[in-house]
Amino acid sequence: MSELSPATVARLPRYLRLLEEAENGRTVSSDVLAEATGVTAANVRRDVAAMGFQGTRGVGYSAVDLADRIRRELGIDKRRKVGIVGAGNLGTALAGYSGVARRGFDVTAVYDVDPKRIGQKVGGTEIRDMAGVAGDSADGLFDMAVLAVPAPSAQTVANQLVSAGIKSILNFAPARIEVPEGVALRQVDLSYELQILSYYG
Amino acid sequence: MSELSPATVARLPRYLRLLEEAENGRTVSSDVLAEATGVTAANVRRDVAAMGFQGTRGVGYSAVDLADRIRRELGIDKRRKVGIVGAGNLGTALAGYSGVARRGFDVTAVYDVDPKRIGQKVGGTEIRDMAGVAGDSADGLFDMAVLAVPAPSAQTVANQLVSAGIKSILNFAPARIEVPEGVALRQVDLSYELQILSYYG
Repeated sequence: MSELSPATVARLPRYLRLLEEAENGRTVSSDVLAEATGVTAANVRRDVAAMGFQGTRGVGYSAVDLADRIRRELGIDKRRKVGIVGAGNLGTALAGYSGVARRGFDVTAVYDVDPKRIGQKVGGTEIRDMAGVAGDSADGLFDMAVLAVPAPSAQTVANQLVSAGIKSILNFAPARIEVPEGVALRQVDLSYELQILSYYG
Repeated sequence: MSELSPATVARLPRYLRLLEEAENGRTVSSDVLAEATGVTAANVRRDVAAMGFQGTRGVGYSAVDLADRIRRELGIDKRRKVGIVGAGNLGTALAGYSGVARRGFDVTAVYDVDPKRIGQKVGGTEIRDMAGVAGDSADGLFDMAVLAVPAPSAQTVANQLVSAGIKSILNFAPARIEVPEGVALRQVDLSYELQILSYYG
């Protein structure tokens, strides 16, 4: 794996989506990747070069090979197991989100603390008791977690997950949480997105 | 309003959150804003200068004044009206997302096409028939839209919204959609977020 800038990493999934849409055996130019992702072709070429990947001048990149390379860089050449914490509307929606399975991820566990929810199924996965999260994680049931809990619980649940050995957390709860160094955290916040969008129109 | 780079605009909501958390009458330094948002202090100072805002050397920025300025830049100094299209699990979760109201947005309309859902309430808002979206938008019921529909419907619904005069769309459907120039579009895609996170752990 290469050492890539955060901006490059953030663009890789977009390139990958386009490359996966290209037909088998096709090449894709940096111009096409640039236009679809809203950056310059020079930017695309730098991103690709940063992975040590080579295209053919005047022809472009082999879609299959570059897609493979990006998957390897992102660590999704092997499937990854995702646990969703919180089986309310948001957790249920995320568990059934189409495309996640196609993109390299299996939702292998869904957790809640509500005794009425535990044992029910969402998207084919039985809802488990949050009390068992440490044991489940030690058993390798999942290794990335998505937080879909109410804001006031977010930090506590994140702490539980970190104690359980989880190193990657995607937080959908509208709360800023802190994790120790060595744990990767991303935050999706609907208000941030609306605020950014509001600037443009 | 200033002409700001996309990267600056994307950071403004994070600065704003911190500034809003500061006590009344306090100043906040570029170092504090930098640490909490993961950029350099020089970056923060450039972002703030791009808005034409001034701090006091060695003291920092007035939290209240800088927050006001950011809200004005983002166009959320007046409240904005949001329509959510799709009243499934995701739309229901988004309609009830805590923090949105506190951040300057009112969910004033929720739409669905399912006759069984139309007329029911989510988060205090009655679900309306998608067939009335053009009239509602002309009446000023909402001016930003959030797409929470299944992927195969996303483009069709986006087209309906654009025809209805909506200029800002936040797409949560796992589908790439296209909008004409002059319409602002942002996409939140769970798979992208998981793929980016996967790089780090």
